[in-house]
Amino acid sequence: MLSILKRVLVGRPIASSEEQHQRIRKLVALPVFASDAISSTAYATDEILVVLLAQAAVGVAAFTKLVPIAIIVCILLAIVVTSYRQTLFAYPNGGGSYIVSRENLGTMPSLVAGASLLVDYILTVSVSVAGGVLAIRSATNLGPSWAVPLCLLCIAMMTVANLRGLKEAGALFAGPTYFYILMLVLLIVVGLYRVFFKDLGPIPVSEMVADGRLSEEALRHTKEVGALSILMLLRAFSSGAVALSGVEAVSNGVPAFQKPESRNAATTLMWMAGILGTCFFGISLLASRLQPFRGEDDATGIALMAQHVYGSRGVMFWATQIATFAILILAANTAYADFPRLSSIIARDGFLPRQLANRGDRLVFSNGILFLAVVASILIVAFKGNISALIPLYAVGVFTGFTLSQAGMVQHHRRLKEPRWRASLVVNAVGACTTGVVALVVVVSKFTEGAYLPAFVIAFLVWLFRSINKHYSSLAKNLAVTPAEVRAISVNHTVVVLVGSVHRGVLEALAYARSLRPEHLIALHVATNEEEQEKMEQQWRDFGLEDTLEIVFSPYRELTGPVLRYIDQLDRQWENDTITVVIPEFVVHRWWEHLLHNQSALVLKARLLFRKGTVVTSIPYHHH
Amino acid sequence: MLSILKRVLVGRPIASSEEQHQRIRKLVALPVFASDAISSTAYATDEILVVLLAQAAVGVAAFTKLVPIAIIVCILLAIVVTSYRQTLFAYPNGGGSYIVSRENLGTMPSLVAGASLLVDYILTVSVSVAGGVLAIRSATNLGPSWAVPLCLLCIAMMTVANLRGLKEAGALFAGPTYFYILMLVLLIVVGLYRVFFKDLGPIPVSEMVADGRLSEEALRHTKEVGALSILMLLRAFSSGAVALSGVEAVSNGVPAFQKPESRNAATTLMWMAGILGTCFFGISLLASRLQPFRGEDDATGIALMAQHVYGSRGVMFWATQIATFAILILAANTAYADFPRLSSIIARDGFLPRQLANRGDRLVFSNGILFLAVVASILIVAFKGNISALIPLYAVGVFTGFTLSQAGMVQHHRRLKEPRWRASLVVNAVGACTTGVVALVVVVSKFTEGAYLPAFVIAFLVWLFRSINKHYSSLAKNLAVTPAEVRAISVNHTVVVLVGSVHRGVLEALAYARSLRPEHLIALHVATNEEEQEKMEQQWRDFGLEDTLEIVFSPYRELTGPVLRYIDQLDRQWENDTITVVIPEFVVHRWWEHLLHNQSALVLKARLLFRKGTVVTSIPYHHH
Repeated sequence: MLSILKRVLVGRPIASSEEQHQRIRKLVALPVFASDAISSTAYATDEILVVLLAQAAVGVAAFTKLVPIAIIVCILLAIVVTSYRQTLFAYPNGGGSYIVSRENLGTMPSLVAGASLLVDYILTVSVSVAGGVLAIRSATNLGPSWAVPLCLLCIAMMTVANLRGLKEAGALFAGPTYFYILMLVLLIVVGLYRVFFKDLGPIPVSEMVADGRLSEEALRHTKEVGALSILMLLRAFSSGAVALSGVEAVSNGVPAFQKPESRNAATTLMWMAGILGTCFFGISLLASRLQPFRGEDDATGIALMAQHVYGSRGVMFWATQIATFAILILAANTAYADFPRLSSIIARDGFLPRQLANRGDRLVFSNGILFLAVVASILIVAFKGNISALIPLYAVGVFTGFTLSQAGMVQHHRRLKEPRWRASLVVNAVGACTTGVVALVVVVSKFTEGAYLPAFVIAFLVWLFRSINKHYSSLAKNLAVTPAEVRAISVNHTVVVLVGSVHRGVLEALAYARSLRPEHLIALHVATNEEEQEKMEQQWRDFGLEDTLEIVFSPYRELTGPVLRYIDQLDRQWENDTITVVIPEFVVHRWWEHLLHNQSALVLKARLLFRKGTVVTSIPYHHH
Repeated sequence: MLSILKRVLVGRPIASSEEQHQRIRKLVALPVFASDAISSTAYATDEILVVLLAQAAVGVAAFTKLVPIAIIVCILLAIVVTSYRQTLFAYPNGGGSYIVSRENLGTMPSLVAGASLLVDYILTVSVSVAGGVLAIRSATNLGPSWAVPLCLLCIAMMTVANLRGLKEAGALFAGPTYFYILMLVLLIVVGLYRVFFKDLGPIPVSEMVADGRLSEEALRHTKEVGALSILMLLRAFSSGAVALSGVEAVSNGVPAFQKPESRNAATTLMWMAGILGTCFFGISLLASRLQPFRGEDDATGIALMAQHVYGSRGVMFWATQIATFAILILAANTAYADFPRLSSIIARDGFLPRQLANRGDRLVFSNGILFLAVVASILIVAFKGNISALIPLYAVGVFTGFTLSQAGMVQHHRRLKEPRWRASLVVNAVGACTTGVVALVVVVSKFTEGAYLPAFVIAFLVWLFRSINKHYSSLAKNLAVTPAEVRAISVNHTVVVLVGSVHRGVLEALAYARSLRPEHLIALHVATNEEEQEKMEQQWRDFGLEDTLEIVFSPYRELTGPVLRYIDQLDRQWENDTITVVIPEFVVHRWWEHLLHNQSALVLKARLLFRKGTVVTSIPYHHH
């Protein structure tokens, strides 16, 4: 039943030999690697505004800070991208933050980078899905109660799609990404044209109140003009900095580009940065003029501006919203590829459970996909699908990863001293310092808003990685053996057959035990009273069985304790022996028939497995 | 952890030898065996009224029917008790309905009787607890929302007490039972005295409305006077007939009486019948005069009448309510003794899972107690703890049991022809016919109210009993073996050792396998690609291992399928052999370490157990 359901949902198994490696053109690579980064333009501007408008009595003054913050974010983007360009050439086989740190900085920094990235990927799913669903809710006026169910539906569908394995990744990504870029550029161009040449004014607040998009209380605040504290400005900047999330994607994917890989990847990275920076700045500029007042969880700034710019909720408005939804779902989907891939690398290094390194029967890392889906869903439920609540968690992992990656590159240049290494070192050092400062600003300014959570989780993950590694290392050391040791192991046999009463199954088990030709063969019976003992001994005589019959008493009518005590006693009798416990088991072939038999054999088997020097042998007796 | 919790709740284990058998005096036997029957006076009158008053526009006319119905129920009681008196003498070792039917009527009738009684016991718990909680709620004015939680609390406490095993049963029962009889008799005597000699009138309805005990709508109906249909009268009678539940208890307990057992039991039965009949009639007579209008789930008639008779909610009122609660909980508790005892008898006969015949470590039938508690709790939740909703389910099992027991006695007399058997036969025949007719009346008149449910459940249980018995019989037939067959079983050995890579654990497993001196020894490795194959073969050569190494490919990266296919193929190679699969298993000793290892060995073990002719041997490799 379950396996049929699995086949329907996931499809037929795929053999290892069917794995394919394909190279992609820049025009296809851009959407594949840039959708995550570019999709952040859908919410980054909004999130700056959420912070600025959250402070009571700021009013329209908030909008004047939007453009300066956007400019700083764009400068940051330029620094990060220039710095990452170095990585593309230094690591043509793919240089994610984990690998660069591992090779240049050592184990601990690489574990921090790995933990940051895993947290980052989980949040990419939660944030992008929450943003995509909000775009749809903005267009359809579905209330906040729809957020969680719709988000979970999206995650479930992506999970199934990724468990099947997405084959035509390029084609899938190209359409929505270019469509979104087109719609966003159109909105910016038409909007700015109407603002500057047709004197389009701000969105009337009364209209928003009528739409139910702005509460009466929030409306009052729009009239007031107040000052913003430095802390609030830093928080707003931290929110805007999430625009950079996903920028590192190209550095992971260099081997997928056509030759020359590094050069093509660098060109793609620059395109991506150009599109991202332009769109983010354009949307922020437009927002500073149109002043979309929005509550935390009702409508997106893009939706409000699109309605205002295009004059109504017509085709253009709907196209903008659908494009936003589509690219955000794509962005979430990139994490479905990145998270399992990175966790499989970490698992292969022995810092995560080995199951994460196993490919499922569709060649994908099923365990990683399922884990990602579950954790992202938990976040969605915990934060009620509210993107603004999730954003403070997001930037910490992103910038920690950036910092370690760039610091690793600094070390890389100092180590290898390749041509023109001094110039490259300066570029990466600037990148490392800048992103390090930003990471610090994010953690400190947003600490109480939730940034403590990823910081804590990253620290916990690093501890977990190390504990897991300690286990695997000590196990490997214990198991290691040299060919010289091979013949040293010898086995001395005592076989104990558990006997309830004399029947066909027990006789088969006894015959089997005899065929092992052990030094000692003992049939063990557990009796609760003397009547049972006599009955057993009588049966033994009746059947003319010559094996030693030992009877132990169980005053409290349980099986496991007396058997374990007897075996302990037996163990003390002879030196250096192996005790094999033979358990005759009924095997029934209908599920309900299991309810008709005591499961005491199962409990006993589990307990014996934990006893040193005991081998457990199950002799099934099949009943139809 | 769990076992500590169990010890605190349930107490230390008790050895089989500590079981005690004690005989009890009649004065103690009466409360022990009669509490269930006498407790039904607490609700039987009320339930007649619920039916009569439910028909709209009947009003005070309902009360005129109360005394006639009570008289019919008392006559029925006299017939049943006279009939059961015969059983006490015929079955001095205890003659429950199941045993009497089994000995005289055959398997099928005994299964119907057994099923009826089990259903009856479950309902005894639900009905009595619901009634007891209603008595407390009547006194404290707790609303219907308190019904379910309080009922479940009572069931939980009784369950724990019974899992511990109740030692001083007699002393426990005597107090509350006599206290209840005293309070009930006082209420009847004082009430009737005030009605007949002090002209105490009916309870003013306005008072009940003010108390919130009667809705305005119900009040309207009290003014009207209408006629009752025959169906309604039959339904009212069916509800009143539950007063007889528990009457059979004495017949189960004859061996517990002092000598002469049967005579003492008969005397106790007569006392019980006298008290039950008098109290039930008295309360019904009083109710016909005081006219306690009550809704379905707000206050008991006894509470309303006690308040009216004693003039206020003083000491006498509270004492009456507490006594009612106490005896109903005792009544529920009798089912905690009867249900596990009967199900253990049925299980020993092979009609229920054997686990129900096992005594737990406190010498009680723990599984039966837990099952009873769970099902009774489900009924409480499903029927919202409303006793009036549960009553239609109750009488079916009770009267089916009576009928089969008496019919069995008729057969008993015809079979044994003891002195004066003809007179006895007539007594039991009258009993059987009367109770049979009542059972029919109950099922038909209450069918739509819920009587279909126990009828269906009894039929299902009988089917279940037979299916279970079929399984055990065919298993016993398969397992049966004669001493002559003993030497016919021989074992031909092929041992397959599963090998992942060469390490200490695998070498130990190989050494163990060699010590079994099998005809064929094969080391089996599952590889997913040729690289793995070569690596394995290289290791094999490096360690100078001389055992046959077989490598099977698993294109879909799973373990179980390829191993099973290989064993199938091996099985076809040689005739009449036993294949032992040796699985080297890591055993880790901290729970979280289990998460770090694939559980594929567990899956494989489970699958191999279901394969015929395969023995599974686990060689643990312990890691600390």
